[in-house]
Amino acid sequence: RRSHLSLSYTDPRLSMDLLRAVLQPSLNQEILQVFNKYHQILDRAVQNVRENVGEEVQTDQLIRDTCRSALEHAKLLFPETEVKKPPPEVTYKRHREDENHRA
Amino acid sequence: RRSHLSLSYTDPRLSMDLLRAVLQPSLNQEILQVFNKYHQILDRAVQNVRENVGEEVQTDQLIRDTCRSALEHAKLLFPETEVKKPPPEVTYKRHREDENHRA
Repeated sequence: RRSHLSLSYTDPRLSMDLLRAVLQPSLNQEILQVFNKYHQILDRAVQNVRENVGEEVQTDQLIRDTCRSALEHAKLLFPETEVKKPPPEVTYKRHREDENHRA
Repeated sequence: RRSHLSLSYTDPRLSMDLLRAVLQPSLNQEILQVFNKYHQILDRAVQNVRENVGEEVQTDQLIRDTCRSALEHAKLLFPETEVKKPPPEVTYKRHREDENHRA
């Protein structure tokens, strides 16, 4: 019976995920503060898009999509393996070949 | 020929993604600063895990996995649809000044 308990406590990923869950609200608050700094620029951009495209543009959703995408891209700060270097994207000097690989 | 050009310029997602790409380095820097605040606690945790589990625990990788997971969970700050409400843990009340000053 006890082995069940110790198994879960010695799973490195589980242990770290428990800590992550504990830290998440605090992290979220700080991440939100970071994104709040960009709110004005994102808001202007979606208003601009709306003017160019039309009233059907859902500005709030577009902003949230952009923020989620930024978080996804920020994961590259913490690459999955040592071998996989952080992408050159961080400097944003893309060559045309790179463009072709973009989804 | 021109329609091709205007098509790409009026794609709301593309427009916003271009802006996102421009802002990403600055965002990354700020996000990294946030995570740096948690480095010590994460480092202690993985050292602890290593002591309990064994030398084979790859501490750096485990920390990066945890950071990526935290970014993934932070996406819930920006839910995909209005209907899907953000989880209770992210409803921050600004007027709780004491919370804001907690490290």
